[in-house]
Amino acid sequence: MTPRTPGRTERRGRPERAGRTERPGRTGRRGGDSGTREAILDAARKRFAAHGYGGATIRGIAADAGVDPALVHHYFGTKERLFGAAVRLPVVPGELISSALAAGAGDPGSSLGEHLVLTALEAWDVAEIRDTFLGLLRSAATSEQALIMLREFVTEAIVGRLSAAAGTADPAQARYRAALVASQVVGLGIARQVLGLEPLAEAGRSELAAAVGPTLDRYLRGDLG
Amino acid sequence: MTPRTPGRTERRGRPERAGRTERPGRTGRRGGDSGTREAILDAARKRFAAHGYGGATIRGIAADAGVDPALVHHYFGTKERLFGAAVRLPVVPGELISSALAAGAGDPGSSLGEHLVLTALEAWDVAEIRDTFLGLLRSAATSEQALIMLREFVTEAIVGRLSAAAGTADPAQARYRAALVASQVVGLGIARQVLGLEPLAEAGRSELAAAVGPTLDRYLRGDLG
Repeated sequence: MTPRTPGRTERRGRPERAGRTERPGRTGRRGGDSGTREAILDAARKRFAAHGYGGATIRGIAADAGVDPALVHHYFGTKERLFGAAVRLPVVPGELISSALAAGAGDPGSSLGEHLVLTALEAWDVAEIRDTFLGLLRSAATSEQALIMLREFVTEAIVGRLSAAAGTADPAQARYRAALVASQVVGLGIARQVLGLEPLAEAGRSELAAAVGPTLDRYLRGDLG
Repeated sequence: MTPRTPGRTERRGRPERAGRTERPGRTGRRGGDSGTREAILDAARKRFAAHGYGGATIRGIAADAGVDPALVHHYFGTKERLFGAAVRLPVVPGELISSALAAGAGDPGSSLGEHLVLTALEAWDVAEIRDTFLGLLRSAATSEQALIMLREFVTEAIVGRLSAAAGTADPAQARYRAALVASQVVGLGIARQVLGLEPLAEAGRSELAAAVGPTLDRYLRGDLG
Protein backbone atom coordinates (compact mmCIF):
# COMPACT_ATOMS: atom_id res chain seq x y z
CA MET A 1 0.00 0.00 0.00
CA THR A 2 1.02 3.69 -0.33
CA PRO A 3 3.71 2.74 -2.86
CA ARG A 4 6.02 5.71 -2.50
CA THR A 5 8.51 4.10 -4.90
CA PRO A 6 10.26 7.32 -5.98
CA GLY A 7 11.12 8.10 -2.38
CA ARG A 8 12.55 4.62 -1.87
CA THR A 9 14.71 4.81 -4.98
CA GLU A 10 16.03 8.18 -3.83
CA ARG A 11 17.08 6.73 -0.51
CA ARG A 12 18.93 3.81 -2.09
CA GLY A 13 20.43 5.92 -4.83
CA ARG A 14 20.08 3.14 -7.42
CA PRO A 15 17.21 1.18 -8.94
CA GLU A 16 16.38 -2.12 -7.27
CA ARG A 17 17.23 -5.38 -8.99
CA ALA A 18 14.37 -7.82 -9.33
CA GLY A 19 14.41 -10.46 -6.63
CA ARG A 20 16.98 -8.70 -4.44
CA THR A 21 15.86 -8.09 -0.88
CA GLU A 22 16.09 -4.79 0.90
CA ARG A 23 19.17 -4.67 3.06
CA PRO A 24 18.22 -3.63 6.57
CA GLY A 25 20.58 -1.16 8.16
CA ARG A 26 22.20 -0.05 4.95
CA THR A 27 19.49 2.27 3.75
CA GLY A 28 17.80 5.24 5.32
CA ARG A 29 19.77 8.38 5.95
CA ARG A 30 17.14 9.58 8.42
CA GLY A 31 17.40 7.93 11.84
CA GLY A 32 13.64 7.60 12.20
CA ASP A 33 13.35 5.46 9.08
CA SER A 34 16.02 2.98 10.00
CA GLY A 35 14.73 2.80 13.56
CA THR A 36 11.26 1.90 12.29
CA ARG A 37 12.66 -0.63 9.82
CA GLU A 38 14.66 -2.32 12.58
CA ALA A 39 11.64 -2.38 14.89
CA ILE A 40 9.62 -4.08 12.15
CA LEU A 41 12.41 -6.59 11.46
CA ASP A 42 12.76 -7.40 15.16
CA ALA A 43 9.02 -7.95 15.46
CA ALA A 44 9.08 -10.07 12.29
CA ARG A 45 11.88 -12.33 13.57
CA LYS A 46 9.99 -12.94 16.81
CA ARG A 47 6.63 -13.55 15.10
CA PHE A 48 8.10 -15.89 12.46
CA ALA A 49 9.89 -17.84 15.20
CA ALA A 50 6.82 -18.04 17.42
CA HIS A 51 4.13 -18.66 14.80
CA GLY A 52 6.03 -20.13 11.86
CA TYR A 53 6.15 -18.71 8.36
CA GLY A 54 2.53 -19.59 7.65
CA GLY A 55 1.13 -18.37 10.97
CA ALA A 56 2.84 -14.98 11.15
CA THR A 57 0.85 -12.11 9.64
CA ILE A 58 1.87 -8.65 8.51
CA ARG A 59 -0.90 -7.31 10.72
CA GLY A 60 0.47 -9.08 13.82
CA ILE A 61 4.03 -8.00 13.09
CA ALA A 62 2.91 -4.40 12.60
CA ALA A 63 1.04 -4.49 15.92
CA ASP A 64 4.12 -5.80 17.73
CA ALA A 65 6.27 -3.09 16.13
CA GLY A 66 3.71 -0.43 16.99
CA VAL A 67 3.21 0.70 13.39
CA ASP A 68 0.47 0.62 10.81
CA PRO A 69 0.38 -2.51 8.58
CA ALA A 70 0.55 -0.19 5.57
CA LEU A 71 4.00 0.93 6.70
CA VAL A 72 5.22 -2.69 6.79
CA HIS A 73 3.96 -3.13 3.23
CA HIS A 74 5.57 0.16 2.26
CA TYR A 75 8.99 -0.86 3.55
CA PHE A 76 9.01 -4.55 2.69
CA GLY A 77 6.25 -5.26 0.19
CA THR A 78 5.12 -8.87 0.66
CA LYS A 79 5.40 -11.21 3.62
CA GLU A 80 7.92 -13.20 1.58
CA ARG A 81 10.17 -10.16 1.15
CA LEU A 82 9.83 -9.32 4.84
CA PHE A 83 10.87 -12.87 5.76
CA GLY A 84 13.84 -12.62 3.38
CA ALA A 85 14.97 -9.39 5.02
CA ALA A 86 14.41 -10.80 8.51
CA VAL A 87 16.65 -13.85 7.93
CA ARG A 88 19.02 -11.77 5.75
CA LEU A 89 18.50 -13.62 2.49
CA PRO A 90 20.25 -11.63 -0.22
CA VAL A 91 17.47 -12.58 -2.63
CA VAL A 92 13.80 -13.53 -2.58
CA PRO A 93 13.77 -17.15 -3.78
CA GLY A 94 10.14 -17.24 -4.90
CA GLU A 95 10.48 -14.11 -7.03
CA LEU A 96 13.63 -15.45 -8.68
CA ILE A 97 11.88 -18.75 -9.40
CA SER A 98 8.94 -16.96 -10.95
CA SER A 99 11.16 -14.89 -13.22
CA ALA A 100 13.30 -17.93 -14.13
CA LEU A 101 10.15 -19.85 -15.03
CA ALA A 102 8.91 -16.96 -17.16
CA ALA A 103 12.28 -16.51 -18.89
CA GLY A 104 12.77 -20.26 -19.38
CA ALA A 105 9.37 -20.68 -20.96
CA GLY A 106 10.21 -18.17 -23.67
CA ASP A 107 13.78 -19.24 -24.50
CA PRO A 108 14.17 -22.06 -27.01
CA GLY A 109 18.00 -22.04 -26.66
CA SER A 110 18.26 -23.50 -23.16
CA SER A 111 15.97 -25.56 -21.00
CA LEU A 112 13.89 -24.48 -18.01
CA GLY A 113 16.15 -26.59 -15.77
CA GLU A 114 19.24 -24.77 -17.02
CA HIS A 115 17.53 -21.43 -16.39
CA LEU A 116 16.70 -22.47 -12.84
CA VAL A 117 20.26 -23.65 -12.09
CA LEU A 118 21.78 -20.48 -13.58
CA THR A 119 19.35 -18.35 -11.59
CA ALA A 120 20.34 -20.07 -8.35
CA LEU A 121 24.07 -19.88 -9.10
CA GLU A 122 23.80 -16.16 -9.91
CA ALA A 123 21.74 -15.48 -6.80
CA TRP A 124 24.39 -17.18 -4.65
CA ASP A 125 27.17 -15.10 -6.16
CA VAL A 126 27.26 -12.49 -3.43
CA ALA A 127 29.89 -12.22 -0.73
CA GLU A 128 27.51 -12.73 2.19
CA ILE A 129 25.79 -15.87 0.88
CA ARG A 130 27.98 -18.27 2.85
CA ASP A 131 27.22 -16.48 6.12
CA THR A 132 23.53 -16.44 5.27
CA PHE A 133 23.51 -20.19 4.60
CA LEU A 134 25.56 -20.91 7.72
CA GLY A 135 23.20 -18.76 9.78
CA LEU A 136 20.14 -20.57 8.43
CA LEU A 137 21.72 -23.99 9.07
CA ARG A 138 22.79 -22.97 12.56
CA SER A 139 19.30 -21.74 13.46
CA ALA A 140 17.59 -24.76 11.95
CA ALA A 141 19.98 -27.19 13.64
CA THR A 142 19.67 -25.44 17.01
CA SER A 143 15.99 -24.61 17.27
CA GLU A 144 13.06 -26.80 16.31
CA GLN A 145 11.01 -23.64 15.79
CA ALA A 146 13.53 -22.26 13.30
CA LEU A 147 13.55 -25.60 11.48
CA ILE A 148 9.76 -25.59 11.19
CA MET A 149 9.83 -21.97 9.98
CA LEU A 150 12.40 -22.86 7.30
CA ARG A 151 10.39 -25.91 6.22
CA GLU A 152 7.23 -23.82 5.87
CA PHE A 153 9.07 -21.17 3.89
CA VAL A 154 10.66 -23.72 1.52
CA THR A 155 7.30 -25.46 1.14
CA GLU A 156 5.33 -22.31 0.37
CA ALA A 157 7.77 -20.04 -1.41
CA ILE A 158 9.94 -22.57 -3.27
CA VAL A 159 8.10 -25.87 -3.73
CA GLY A 160 4.80 -24.03 -4.19
CA ARG A 161 6.16 -21.87 -7.00
CA LEU A 162 8.11 -24.64 -8.68
CA SER A 163 5.14 -26.98 -8.71
CA ALA A 164 3.41 -24.63 -11.17
CA ALA A 165 6.07 -25.63 -13.71
CA ALA A 166 5.65 -29.39 -13.21
CA GLY A 167 4.16 -31.15 -16.19
CA THR A 168 1.19 -32.66 -14.40
CA ALA A 169 -2.34 -31.70 -13.42
CA ASP A 170 -2.12 -33.72 -10.18
CA PRO A 171 -1.20 -31.26 -7.38
CA ALA A 172 0.42 -33.93 -5.16
CA GLN A 173 2.54 -35.17 -8.05
CA ALA A 174 3.47 -31.59 -8.95
CA ARG A 175 4.68 -30.95 -5.39
CA TYR A 176 6.64 -34.20 -5.37
CA ARG A 177 8.38 -33.17 -8.58
CA ALA A 178 9.03 -29.67 -7.22
CA ALA A 179 10.43 -31.11 -3.98
CA LEU A 180 12.85 -33.27 -5.99
CA VAL A 181 14.05 -30.11 -7.75
CA ALA A 182 14.45 -28.41 -4.37
CA SER A 183 16.49 -31.35 -3.06
CA GLN A 184 19.00 -31.05 -5.92
CA VAL A 185 19.25 -27.26 -5.70
CA VAL A 186 19.62 -27.30 -1.90
CA GLY A 187 22.30 -29.98 -2.20
CA LEU A 188 24.15 -27.99 -4.83
CA GLY A 189 24.04 -24.91 -2.62
CA ILE A 190 25.36 -26.77 0.40
CA ALA A 191 28.07 -28.61 -1.52
CA ARG A 192 29.23 -25.51 -3.39
CA GLN A 193 28.60 -22.57 -1.07
CA VAL A 194 28.77 -24.06 2.41
CA LEU A 195 31.01 -27.12 2.25
CA GLY A 196 33.13 -25.75 -0.63
CA LEU A 197 33.35 -29.23 -2.10
CA GLU A 198 35.85 -29.32 -4.94
CA PRO A 199 35.78 -29.46 -7.90
CA LEU A 200 32.14 -28.42 -7.62
CA ALA A 201 32.93 -25.16 -5.84
CA GLU A 202 35.20 -23.90 -8.61
CA ALA A 203 33.13 -25.16 -11.56
CA GLY A 204 31.77 -22.52 -13.94
CA ARG A 205 28.11 -21.61 -13.86
CA SER A 206 27.36 -22.63 -17.44
CA GLU A 207 29.14 -25.97 -16.97
CA LEU A 208 27.02 -26.67 -13.88
CA ALA A 209 23.84 -25.50 -15.58
CA ALA A 210 24.47 -27.92 -18.45
CA ALA A 211 25.17 -30.76 -15.99
CA VAL A 212 22.35 -30.17 -13.50
CA GLY A 213 19.71 -28.50 -15.72
CA PRO A 214 18.57 -31.75 -17.38
CA THR A 215 18.08 -33.26 -13.91
CA LEU A 216 15.62 -30.50 -13.01
CA ASP A 217 13.89 -30.83 -16.39
CA ARG A 218 13.37 -34.55 -15.81
CA TYR A 219 12.16 -34.00 -12.24
CA LEU A 220 9.65 -31.39 -13.43
CA ARG A 221 8.39 -32.94 -16.63
CA GLY A 222 10.17 -36.18 -17.45
CA ASP A 223 9.69 -39.87 -16.74
CA LEU A 224 10.27 -40.59 -13.04
CA GLY A 225 10.35 -44.37 -13.52
CA MET B 1 45.80 -55.34 13.94
CA THR B 2 45.16 -58.07 16.52
CA PRO B 3 41.71 -58.68 15.00
CA ARG B 4 40.04 -60.43 17.92
CA THR B 5 36.74 -60.51 16.05
CA PRO B 6 35.14 -63.33 18.09
CA GLY B 7 35.64 -61.32 21.27
CA ARG B 8 34.02 -58.27 19.69
CA THR B 9 31.00 -60.25 18.50
CA GLU B 10 30.64 -61.74 21.98
CA ARG B 11 30.53 -58.29 23.51
CA ARG B 12 27.87 -57.06 21.13
CA GLY B 13 25.84 -60.24 21.30
CA ARG B 14 24.96 -60.10 17.59
CA PRO B 15 26.91 -60.16 14.35
CA GLU B 16 27.76 -56.75 12.91
CA ARG B 17 26.03 -55.49 9.81
CA ALA B 18 28.32 -54.35 7.04
CA GLY B 19 28.82 -50.60 7.11
CA ARG B 20 27.31 -50.11 10.57
CA THR B 21 29.52 -48.25 13.00
CA GLU B 22 30.24 -49.31 16.54
CA ARG B 23 27.95 -47.50 18.94
CA PRO B 24 30.05 -45.98 21.67
CA GLY B 25 28.56 -46.30 25.10
CA ARG B 26 26.21 -49.13 24.22
CA THR B 27 28.72 -51.96 24.14
CA GLY B 28 31.18 -53.21 26.70
CA ARG B 29 29.89 -54.85 29.83
CA ARG B 30 33.25 -54.40 31.51
CA GLY B 31 33.93 -50.88 32.81
CA GLY B 32 37.56 -50.97 31.68
CA ASP B 33 36.60 -51.57 28.05
CA SER B 34 34.07 -48.79 27.81
CA GLY B 35 36.39 -46.42 29.68
CA THR B 36 39.14 -47.08 27.15
CA ARG B 37 36.74 -46.75 24.22
CA GLU B 38 35.49 -43.43 25.52
CA ALA B 39 39.04 -42.17 26.09
CA ILE B 40 39.90 -43.07 22.48
CA LEU B 41 36.73 -41.37 21.17
CA ASP B 42 37.44 -38.24 23.21
CA ALA B 43 40.99 -38.10 21.88
CA ALA B 44 39.70 -38.72 18.34
CA ARG B 45 37.16 -35.88 18.50
CA LYS B 46 39.85 -33.46 19.67
CA ARG B 47 42.42 -34.59 17.07
CA PHE B 48 39.93 -34.52 14.19
CA ALA B 49 38.84 -31.05 15.24
CA ALA B 50 42.39 -29.75 15.65
CA HIS B 51 44.06 -31.43 12.66
CA GLY B 52 41.18 -32.13 10.29
CA TYR B 53 40.18 -35.52 8.95
CA GLY B 54 43.26 -35.82 6.77
CA GLY B 55 45.76 -34.62 9.37
CA ALA B 56 44.62 -36.73 12.33
CA THR B 57 46.40 -40.08 12.66
CA ILE B 58 45.51 -43.23 14.59
CA ARG B 59 48.99 -43.03 16.13
CA GLY B 60 48.44 -39.48 17.41
CA ILE B 61 44.96 -40.30 18.73
CA ALA B 62 46.33 -43.37 20.52
CA ALA B 63 49.11 -41.29 22.11
CA ASP B 64 46.57 -38.72 23.36
CA ALA B 65 44.40 -41.49 24.80
CA GLY B 66 47.43 -43.16 26.40
CA VAL B 67 46.91 -46.48 24.61
CA ASP B 68 48.70 -48.53 21.99
CA PRO B 69 47.70 -47.80 18.35
CA ALA B 70 46.92 -51.51 17.97
CA LEU B 71 44.14 -51.10 20.54
CA VAL B 72 42.57 -48.28 18.51
CA HIS B 73 42.60 -50.54 15.46
CA HIS B 74 41.21 -53.37 17.55
CA TYR B 75 38.26 -51.34 18.78
CA PHE B 76 37.52 -49.26 15.69
CA GLY B 77 39.27 -50.79 12.69
CA THR B 78 40.02 -48.00 10.23
CA LYS B 79 40.37 -44.24 10.67
CA GLU B 80 37.13 -43.89 8.73
CA ARG B 81 35.26 -46.11 11.20
CA LEU B 82 36.81 -44.24 14.12
CA PHE B 83 35.67 -40.92 12.64
CA GLY B 84 32.18 -42.35 12.14
CA ALA B 85 32.00 -43.43 15.78
CA ALA B 86 33.44 -40.09 16.98
CA VAL B 87 30.77 -38.02 15.20
CA ARG B 88 28.12 -40.69 15.88
CA LEU B 89 27.37 -41.64 12.30
CA PRO B 90 25.14 -44.70 12.40
CA VAL B 91 26.91 -46.00 9.30
CA VAL B 92 30.27 -45.75 7.55
CA PRO B 93 29.48 -43.96 4.28
CA GLY B 94 32.55 -45.12 2.37
CA GLU B 95 31.95 -48.78 3.17
CA LEU B 96 28.32 -48.53 2.14
CA ILE B 97 29.32 -46.86 -1.12
CA SER B 98 31.84 -49.59 -1.84
CA SER B 99 29.32 -52.35 -1.25
CA ALA B 100 26.64 -50.50 -3.26
CA LEU B 101 29.08 -50.12 -6.15
CA ALA B 102 29.96 -53.82 -5.98
CA ALA B 103 26.29 -54.88 -5.78
CA GLY B 104 25.21 -52.45 -8.51
CA ALA B 105 27.88 -53.67 -10.91
CA GLY B 106 26.57 -57.23 -10.73
CA ASP B 107 22.83 -56.53 -10.92
CA PRO B 108 21.32 -56.19 -14.39
CA GLY B 109 17.83 -55.48 -12.95
CA SER B 110 18.46 -52.02 -11.55
CA SER B 111 21.03 -49.33 -12.21
CA LEU B 112 24.03 -48.34 -10.15
CA GLY B 113 22.36 -45.01 -9.38
CA GLU B 114 19.27 -46.76 -8.02
CA HIS B 115 21.49 -48.96 -5.86
CA LEU B 116 23.24 -45.90 -4.47
CA VAL B 117 19.97 -44.10 -3.67
CA LEU B 118 18.47 -47.20 -2.03
CA THR B 119 21.64 -47.70 0.00
CA ALA B 120 21.51 -44.12 1.28
CA LEU B 121 17.78 -44.31 2.07
CA GLU B 122 18.24 -47.58 3.98
CA ALA B 123 21.23 -46.22 5.88
CA TRP B 124 19.19 -43.19 6.97
CA ASP B 125 16.35 -45.36 8.20
CA VAL B 126 17.43 -45.37 11.85
CA ALA B 127 15.80 -43.39 14.63
CA GLU B 128 18.88 -41.34 15.48
CA ILE B 129 19.73 -40.18 11.95
CA ARG B 130 17.96 -36.84 12.31
CA ASP B 131 19.91 -36.01 15.47
CA THR B 132 23.13 -37.07 13.77
CA PHE B 133 22.47 -34.83 10.78
CA LEU B 134 21.40 -31.92 12.99
CA GLY B 135 24.54 -32.37 15.10
CA LEU B 136 26.78 -32.36 12.02
CA LEU B 137 25.04 -29.26 10.61
CA ARG B 138 25.23 -27.48 13.95
CA SER B 139 28.95 -28.20 14.32
CA ALA B 140 29.74 -27.26 10.73
CA ALA B 141 27.69 -24.06 10.94
CA THR B 142 29.24 -23.06 14.27
CA SER B 143 32.89 -23.97 13.89
CA GLU B 144 35.10 -23.40 10.85
CA GLN B 145 37.27 -26.32 12.03
CA ALA B 146 34.30 -28.66 12.09
CA LEU B 147 33.30 -27.49 8.61
CA ILE B 148 36.79 -28.19 7.25
CA MET B 149 36.80 -31.61 8.93
CA LEU B 150 33.45 -32.46 7.34
CA ARG B 151 34.62 -31.22 3.93
CA GLU B 152 37.75 -33.39 4.13
CA PHE B 153 35.74 -36.42 5.19
CA VAL B 154 33.20 -36.00 2.39
CA THR B 155 36.03 -35.42 -0.09
CA GLU B 156 38.05 -38.46 0.92
CA ALA B 157 35.49 -41.00 2.05
CA ILE B 158 32.56 -40.17 -0.24
CA VAL B 159 33.73 -38.34 -3.37
CA GLY B 160 36.94 -40.39 -3.45
CA ARG B 161 35.05 -43.69 -3.41
CA LEU B 162 32.34 -42.59 -5.83
CA SER B 163 34.85 -41.30 -8.35
CA ALA B 164 36.01 -44.89 -8.91
CA ALA B 165 32.59 -45.54 -10.47
CA ALA B 166 32.67 -42.56 -12.82
CA GLY B 167 32.95 -43.51 -16.46
CA THR B 168 36.12 -41.55 -17.20
CA ALA B 169 39.85 -42.02 -16.98
CA ASP B 170 40.40 -38.34 -16.13
CA PRO B 171 40.70 -38.10 -12.32
CA ALA B 172 39.51 -34.46 -12.16
CA GLN B 173 36.47 -35.26 -14.29
CA ALA B 174 35.77 -38.34 -12.17
CA ARG B 175 35.80 -36.24 -9.00
CA TYR B 176 33.56 -33.63 -10.60
CA ARG B 177 31.05 -36.33 -11.48
CA ALA B 178 31.29 -37.85 -8.00
CA ALA B 179 30.80 -34.44 -6.40
CA LEU B 180 27.62 -33.94 -8.45
CA VAL B 181 26.36 -37.27 -7.09
CA ALA B 182 27.23 -36.15 -3.57
CA SER B 183 25.33 -32.88 -4.07
CA GLN B 184 22.12 -34.72 -4.99
CA VAL B 185 22.43 -37.27 -2.19
CA VAL B 186 23.24 -34.62 0.43
CA GLY B 187 20.30 -32.55 -0.79
CA LEU B 188 17.98 -35.53 -0.61
CA GLY B 189 19.17 -36.27 2.93
CA ILE B 190 18.61 -32.70 4.08
CA ALA B 191 15.23 -32.33 2.38
CA ARG B 192 13.96 -35.70 3.61
CA GLN B 193 15.63 -36.33 6.96
CA VAL B 194 16.35 -32.86 8.31
CA LEU B 195 13.80 -30.48 6.80
CA GLY B 196 11.11 -33.15 6.50
CA LEU B 197 9.99 -31.62 3.20
CA GLU B 198 6.73 -33.16 2.03
CA PRO B 199 5.89 -35.08 -0.03
CA LEU B 200 9.55 -36.12 -0.28
CA ALA B 201 9.76 -37.16 3.36
CA GLU B 202 6.92 -39.66 3.09
CA ALA B 203 7.79 -41.03 -0.36
CA GLY B 204 8.69 -44.72 -0.58
CA ARG B 205 12.27 -45.78 -1.04
CA SER B 206 11.76 -47.57 -4.34
CA GLU B 207 9.81 -44.64 -5.75
CA LEU B 208 12.65 -42.29 -4.83
CA ALA B 209 15.28 -44.68 -6.15
CA ALA B 210 13.49 -44.81 -9.50
CA ALA B 211 13.24 -41.01 -9.59
CA VAL B 212 16.73 -40.10 -8.41
CA GLY B 213 18.76 -43.14 -9.55
CA PRO B 214 18.92 -42.07 -13.22
CA THR B 215 20.25 -38.67 -12.08
CA LEU B 216 23.20 -40.36 -10.38
CA ASP B 217 23.73 -42.65 -13.39
CA ARG B 218 23.95 -39.64 -15.68
CA TYR B 219 26.26 -37.75 -13.32
CA LEU B 220 28.58 -40.75 -13.10
CA ARG B 221 28.59 -41.96 -16.67
CA GLY B 222 26.25 -39.95 -18.87
CA ASP B 223 26.44 -36.87 -21.05
CA LEU B 224 26.96 -33.77 -18.93
CA GLY B 225 26.31 -31.38 -21.81
